[in-house]
Amino acid sequence: MSITRHHKNARMSQGVSWNGMFVTSAQVAKDFDLDAAGQTREVLDKIDALLAEQGYDKSNIVSATIWLADIADYAAMNSVWDAWVSTDEPPARACVEARFSSPRIKVEIQIMAAG
Amino acid sequence: MSITRHHKNARMSQGVSWNGMFVTSAQVAKDFDLDAAGQTREVLDKIDALLAEQGYDKSNIVSATIWLADIADYAAMNSVWDAWVSTDEPPARACVEARFSSPRIKVEIQIMAAG
Amino acid sequence: MSITRHHKNARMSQGVSWNGMFVTSAQVAKDFDLDAAGQTREVLDKIDALLAEQGYDKSNIVSATIWLADIADYAAMNSVWDAWVSTDEPPARACVEARFSSPRIKVEIQIMAAG
Repeated sequence: MSITRHHKNARMSQGVSWNGMFVTSAQVAKDFDLDAAGQTREVLDKIDALLAEQGYDKSNIVSATIWLADIADYAAMNSVWDAWVSTDEPPARACVEARFSSPRIKVEIQIMAAG
Repeated sequence: MSITRHHKNARMSQGVSWNGMFVTSAQVAKDFDLDAAGQTREVLDKIDALLAEQGYDKSNIVSATIWLADIADYAAMNSVWDAWVSTDEPPARACVEARFSSPRIKVEIQIMAAG
Repeated sequence: MSITRHHKNARMSQGVSWNGMFVTSAQVAKDFDLDAAGQTREVLDKIDALLAEQGYDKSNIVSATIWLADIADYAAMNSVWDAWVSTDEPPARACVEARFSSPRIKVEIQIMAAG
């Protein structure tokens, strides 16, 4: 079973598929000046686009790992998450606080999908 | 290969299975007043229950991710882990410090199992 | 489909394989006195060795999770990573800051590979 890599550069691939499984890199917002809710919105847009290229959508997500630079943004992130997630097919989830490569990043989300 | 979701609400599923793989959400204790060892005990009880519903047990665990609010609780968590884990079939593991959605949570554990 | 465990002790296995998937524990350097670049080098050596035992190499890596004790070491870690990674077959990646079981550990890396 072969591995297919999507949006790759010399350091990493933004998505990797194998045997129907699809794993993304931790996604970040395009605009780091946005607040946590705005960054979450952009991160989820990126995840939607990566899934679509794979022929998947958010109902294919098995699990999501969410990191917040400040756990005080938990409610703000969830407000965007809850409006976005497939309420019929929600993934397993973990959410913890962590610092990122840029102090302007407020949220990173990585997903594993399958189909 | 279809995805099956267990104990789902509108935000997340506590367990998701696909193709023999089973991924849980990060599990937390029932009683946040317990110390790290007590919370670890309750988290592992929840994982046992989720695995049992899937027809699996702890010998099916492929990997576990453990987050501790205070890495100083590493020994306390391990004392409970070591008494619980399948010593013949132990999983791959990662354990790091991280803050959670509630400051009363001392440990969260997520597992991926298979069979 | 059976689970095979590699380099196991009573607490964890350093690698677990199932159905062509291979997950390692978070790997640490041998010499905790090394700086972040040196520890990254030793961690990647360990990952190479674990993959080789499985009949895999770094081109089989689907995803990597990198934790740094100090995110200020991001560039130092990347300098070693970039010289090591398969530039044709790079994995999905997440990298965040986290504290470890020993304050002398500067980096831990866990990978999921497949073939």
